[in-house]
Amino acid sequence: MERLYEKIRKEGTVIGTEILKVDNFLNHRLDVEFLDLVGREFHTRFAGEQVDSILTVEVSGIAVAVLAARYFQVPVVYAKKHSSKTLSEETYNAEVFSFTKKTTYQIKVDRKFISPGDRVLILDDFLAKGQAALGLIEICRQAGATVVGAGMVIEKDFQEGGRMLRDQGVRVESLARIRYMDEERIEFMGGGADAL
Amino acid sequence: MERLYEKIRKEGTVIGTEILKVDNFLNHRLDVEFLDLVGREFHTRFAGEQVDSILTVEVSGIAVAVLAARYFQVPVVYAKKHSSKTLSEETYNAEVFSFTKKTTYQIKVDRKFISPGDRVLILDDFLAKGQAALGLIEICRQAGATVVGAGMVIEKDFQEGGRMLRDQGVRVESLARIRYMDEERIEFMGGGADAL
Repeated sequence: MERLYEKIRKEGTVIGTEILKVDNFLNHRLDVEFLDLVGREFHTRFAGEQVDSILTVEVSGIAVAVLAARYFQVPVVYAKKHSSKTLSEETYNAEVFSFTKKTTYQIKVDRKFISPGDRVLILDDFLAKGQAALGLIEICRQAGATVVGAGMVIEKDFQEGGRMLRDQGVRVESLARIRYMDEERIEFMGGGADAL
Repeated sequence: MERLYEKIRKEGTVIGTEILKVDNFLNHRLDVEFLDLVGREFHTRFAGEQVDSILTVEVSGIAVAVLAARYFQVPVVYAKKHSSKTLSEETYNAEVFSFTKKTTYQIKVDRKFISPGDRVLILDDFLAKGQAALGLIEICRQAGATVVGAGMVIEKDFQEGGRMLRDQGVRVESLARIRYMDEERIEFMGGGADAL
């Protein structure tokens, strides 16, 4: 993951000590060639697992989920944050609290897209306070599906999301875990295979 | 595109005569294996063109844009509909009128992601009344970029978007053009290469 560390250091901008802006490659402009390596790395990490589908949440999880899904050869389902004319009324719903916006919103997945017994891999761009991931896990629980694990591109290890997921027994694979950051420096946790 | 026609016929649901629900493969559950063929087809269609980046708009254009971008070996930029803490204030903005929601919203692209002279390919899942595509074209105009063309997975030919873009001289490549649809049948326009 040296290349991911390097991209975060070179292209990322830290605002204060909590916000990391990586819009240059991960969530506004998408460096598809690089994100394809990220997708392949998730496939390597979860190579021993049977995965039936990849679950993420709109918007910024979609690109990584789709690129990973090519390697797994499975479909992606993304939870919706906004209702629309084409969204079924038969959905699994979970409440997600947004710390940045100080509001609770609902994420929804059409019931026909997750079945009992499905083995689901959750992927997302960021793991911070874990609210979105917990919402996705709750949706899998409602569906009677098994969560194989959660793959995150960047984990803010100084926030509680990773601990909350691991305490629930979820296998979390984060490609870059940030221990500390401010406008001067970013410190990563060591360890993990250096496949990127 | 026979396979796309077949998927639309088999997996799509028409509501009234204007709404086509294809959430089974295009915009809720993503059939990544199939959408990869869609991405490759856009690459084939625009093979003669120099393309520097692919521009789309969140949410449902992202998957196709990313999969196409692998073949073009270029980055994707997606316009944002929602503001966020990490969105720069230096953006190109365009107004988009939503006929379904009867409201106008703004789409935004950080100025650093489109440069004067860039050759930009616009991709999206649907072309209906053309408002989102016109917004993306307006953003390219503000940036001094050239629109190479617009690739759409499904065009509702009975709505005015395609005509408006073609009247502006934009090369539009739609993989399935629907002439008419209701809850009983879907009629496609003939023509075009059958590569899917």
